[in-house]
Amino acid sequence: MKPMAGTLRFRPEDLKAYVAKFFCHFGVPEQDAEIVADVLITADLRGVHSHGIARLHTYYGDRLRRGLINPQTSLTLLHETPTTLAFDAGNGLGQVAGVKAMEACIAKAREVGVGIATVRNSNHYGIAGYYAMLALKHNMIGLSLTNSQPLVAPTYGRTRVLGTNPIAIAVPTGKERPFVLDMATSIVSMGKVALYAELGQQIPLGWGIDKAGNLTQDPRAIRDGGCLLPLGGTDVMGGYKGYGLALAVDILSGVLSGAAFGPYVGSPSSLDPSPVNIGHFFLALRVDAFRPLEEFKQDMDHLISLLRQAPKAPGQPRIYIHGEKEFEEQERNLRDGIPLPIPVVEELKKKGTEVGVPFKLTPVGKGK
Amino acid sequence: MKPMAGTLRFRPEDLKAYVAKFFCHFGVPEQDAEIVADVLITADLRGVHSHGIARLHTYYGDRLRRGLINPQTSLTLLHETPTTLAFDAGNGLGQVAGVKAMEACIAKAREVGVGIATVRNSNHYGIAGYYAMLALKHNMIGLSLTNSQPLVAPTYGRTRVLGTNPIAIAVPTGKERPFVLDMATSIVSMGKVALYAELGQQIPLGWGIDKAGNLTQDPRAIRDGGCLLPLGGTDVMGGYKGYGLALAVDILSGVLSGAAFGPYVGSPSSLDPSPVNIGHFFLALRVDAFRPLEEFKQDMDHLISLLRQAPKAPGQPRIYIHGEKEFEEQERNLRDGIPLPIPVVEELKKKGTEVGVPFKLTPVGKGK
Repeated sequence: MKPMAGTLRFRPEDLKAYVAKFFCHFGVPEQDAEIVADVLITADLRGVHSHGIARLHTYYGDRLRRGLINPQTSLTLLHETPTTLAFDAGNGLGQVAGVKAMEACIAKAREVGVGIATVRNSNHYGIAGYYAMLALKHNMIGLSLTNSQPLVAPTYGRTRVLGTNPIAIAVPTGKERPFVLDMATSIVSMGKVALYAELGQQIPLGWGIDKAGNLTQDPRAIRDGGCLLPLGGTDVMGGYKGYGLALAVDILSGVLSGAAFGPYVGSPSSLDPSPVNIGHFFLALRVDAFRPLEEFKQDMDHLISLLRQAPKAPGQPRIYIHGEKEFEEQERNLRDGIPLPIPVVEELKKKGTEVGVPFKLTPVGKGK
Repeated sequence: MKPMAGTLRFRPEDLKAYVAKFFCHFGVPEQDAEIVADVLITADLRGVHSHGIARLHTYYGDRLRRGLINPQTSLTLLHETPTTLAFDAGNGLGQVAGVKAMEACIAKAREVGVGIATVRNSNHYGIAGYYAMLALKHNMIGLSLTNSQPLVAPTYGRTRVLGTNPIAIAVPTGKERPFVLDMATSIVSMGKVALYAELGQQIPLGWGIDKAGNLTQDPRAIRDGGCLLPLGGTDVMGGYKGYGLALAVDILSGVLSGAAFGPYVGSPSSLDPSPVNIGHFFLALRVDAFRPLEEFKQDMDHLISLLRQAPKAPGQPRIYIHGEKEFEEQERNLRDGIPLPIPVVEELKKKGTEVGVPFKLTPVGKGK
């Protein structure tokens, strides 16, 4: 299923410059604004539009102009050991906190083999994979976790207690593209369910439950007071494993950091005056602490080629490696421009003018 | 579904002493034999009988007496940094390698905040959770991963390329029982599918595929040349996420350690002369590197009680925390004895006599 609207394509550098200007307008320092712009537009480049420029107003602008996000991301160091860092983001931007915390992990890892950082008192940081991928050019393995507002029911529950708490892992390779797993620990996102609701279409049984706790194919029953189910879905299909992963992510990014956890995590699109208080967890690990880098890369290439060449299920031409689709999308979008649905462009124009940062970019192409 | 056979209950210390004696008989040093016995009988205590004494001959004895497992587990240190250790287990026992490697992680973590170890050239190490749980009494978070013989198809594939590669995470708490997630990254184990096959029962659609790559409810079609599916199952239900987790575990425990990976990992019950060459990955992390321990424990208790008290789905009296069922089972089995199915007891008797370690324990009770 795809959204029905047509799209317009824009040059990534134009979008990035616009987003940076947008954040500067709300008092975000230029360097920080460029970080946020890079994270958001990288999501669009990779085809993860749910975490890209489409969220510019709801997740960021609407909150910045009400003073609900601190435009000055003060990353205060609370605790430090030779290998770990615990930060407080001061209710600043998750992207700025995330990039700086991950870079600090990489610096630790360079010195002692591994670096781990937690961040409390943060906001939505966009795609989890961005931070994990920062490790790649240093020949390190990167891990990035974050908690998020409650949308997921625990196994045997019927209310929203846990977030879709993503896990992102990036691993360097030789000739192959890096392995980049970036997954929510729910089966699907609430955004996907909402899209089905808007289109009046049924969803597959198992994605979520209604208010009473029963499985439903009606996306409205999930969106309006129901819950997403964790990866696995029902108990018999292993849903308690997805529930366990969501909980583990909440523990590492929420409880360990001292941020909010479970139902206390705020929504990035809420205009509630209390801080969202999201927590993140980052890890960078030197590959060559364990074995020679070239051997590792050769084996990664080998494993990937074994998967790619494995016999296919009926009707399936291809087995994908995690991140591969996104790298291909990125290559296309760098060449042809990033496609944005026309309603998203219209909203950027309307709200951009309202808040004093008019969106006047010229599209470079149309459609798919 | 439960196995049909009746059970006999045995004192855990009797079983542990028998298992230790069994390993000593095959040339395993006494201290190492006690480690293996504790890991195996802990699995039975916690109700994970698929990784307990039932595997004594197939996974260990049958291989030890053919010289396919080295009874002297030589844990050679290949690389070391202030935070990391890379070991070679010399085709020794996975349990001995696992306990020593995890203890080395804990020692590193005590000094510098975190410790990570890989192990190559190992054998089946039993329950992944055992090693993660070693961190608990040190007020650390423990992580334990291992790869295993290929049984799982990648999304869109139809052959066994990846193992059921488990993830175990243990987290200390205050008054509550610790959080212990110990999960295969497949929906179910092949052992469970084989049990349905023996009982002539159908399985739920989604657990696995037949030789041709089609979903099947016939457990024999999965057991005999088909594949398990990764957590999530089909693509539309998020199966590529489970596939990604299985692959990530293979990368960290197989590729990073320099062990076998993917389809090259040997089966613990095979009598093939080539080493199984399983790889493991362990991590220990000090909680107080990030925030005061007591605050963390209070928040863990709070999160657990929020989950436990959350409203229940229809017909569900209880929401479980990961590890809780196993702790309850352990308490019961410590009191009443460990239940072993009568066919398992019969095999222990028959094969024990054959190999010269007669199983003559007196049961302390019967049935459930």
